[in-house]
Amino acid sequence: MKVFIVHAHAEPESFNGTLTRHAKQVLETAGHEVIISDLYAMNFDPVSDRRNFTSQKNPDYFKQQIEEMYATEVNGFAPDIQAEMEKLEWCDLLIMQFPLWWFSLPAILKGWVDRTFALGKIYGGGKWYDNGVFQGKKAMLSLTTGGPENMYTAIGINGNINEILFPIHHGILRFVGFDVLPPFIAWAVAHADEEKRQAYLNAYQDRLLKIAETEPIFYPSLSDYDDRFQLKSK
Amino acid sequence: MKVFIVHAHAEPESFNGTLTRHAKQVLETAGHEVIISDLYAMNFDPVSDRRNFTSQKNPDYFKQQIEEMYATEVNGFAPDIQAEMEKLEWCDLLIMQFPLWWFSLPAILKGWVDRTFALGKIYGGGKWYDNGVFQGKKAMLSLTTGGPENMYTAIGINGNINEILFPIHHGILRFVGFDVLPPFIAWAVAHADEEKRQAYLNAYQDRLLKIAETEPIFYPSLSDYDDRFQLKSK
Repeated sequence: MKVFIVHAHAEPESFNGTLTRHAKQVLETAGHEVIISDLYAMNFDPVSDRRNFTSQKNPDYFKQQIEEMYATEVNGFAPDIQAEMEKLEWCDLLIMQFPLWWFSLPAILKGWVDRTFALGKIYGGGKWYDNGVFQGKKAMLSLTTGGPENMYTAIGINGNINEILFPIHHGILRFVGFDVLPPFIAWAVAHADEEKRQAYLNAYQDRLLKIAETEPIFYPSLSDYDDRFQLKSK
Repeated sequence: MKVFIVHAHAEPESFNGTLTRHAKQVLETAGHEVIISDLYAMNFDPVSDRRNFTSQKNPDYFKQQIEEMYATEVNGFAPDIQAEMEKLEWCDLLIMQFPLWWFSLPAILKGWVDRTFALGKIYGGGKWYDNGVFQGKKAMLSLTTGGPENMYTAIGINGNINEILFPIHHGILRFVGFDVLPPFIAWAVAHADEEKRQAYLNAYQDRLLKIAETEPIFYPSLSDYDDRFQLKSK
């Protein structure tokens, strides 16, 4: 299995860092290949605009999707974006490792999506959801939270974690065709002692070694929607 | 009313730009004050790390929340962050103007939140949700989408827009105390003709002139949760 970990944390010695190093070691020991984009270490620029491209379709008006379509035609993506696209094409499993910031991705990781997931190359022309470019590949979020699990239940003060992650799971990963595996979540790690952290590392190892048998999150298929993109009644 | 618009679009002549200019003109004509943070024009840096601070609590290990608490104590926020905090304190109404990218905020705007909404200064110590720092202030999203409205219904292929916006509405704006007004959404603007665009501008004007009478989105109060942060049964 070829595994691509996109890692987003400013502090290398953070628990996020420990999780990514652990994943690399566990997966490589099991015979898999692992590459990591450590976005902070790479000084990755998350701002999406003309910097995404070496090509230019319309110099007078910047419409990102027009420029993406054109760059797809003429190989006009900037080298930093081209490199990330090639890692996505290469992998069988994408893991995003991040701390949940403001109930979403840290900006450096959101911008990695904004810039890399380009119209033409990564989606569009009927290629979305289960017909997406990355169909057959798997993706999984591995995240840490500030608050404890009880805050993220259906009746918890922060709301259901599955609803909080829905825009990422469905709107980013499933949108481009990935089978989305249930997330690995290390809760309230700032308050976790060494024993608790070791338990998380063991649990993550179990998850990583069972990727092949893990059932993806269920989403309807394109064929379940009518021509106005509404779910057909059964 | 003091209105703070945070604007996130790379193309000044985009419909997002038109909406923000229209809002400024409409609100000022009605006697309100308006300031705008045009994040692309400001070349705002959305990457959150030590660059957020002039102070430093722990040079060996970067834990953002520790540094935020310390910066709150010693006035150690970087000038670009301090400036945004002052605009938040000044305003009665915050508007975020952005294109919905990957079912969320563009990275430049997500990073504005990641960096500016600092522990100590903007939340923490029991100051959250209806006891938040910004209680009594209002906030509203104004966004454009790629897809048409029918894709964003409860049975639409992209999912319910209210669920997609929940992490922003509840997890960012309500979390720090704002009363969250229903969003203003201009659907599929790339495909909208001049007449449709003018209708959106008129509708936005109506919304802006009725801010005072607009009912915020209902969320439970802190007092509706028990000491494990679970909603009490009635």
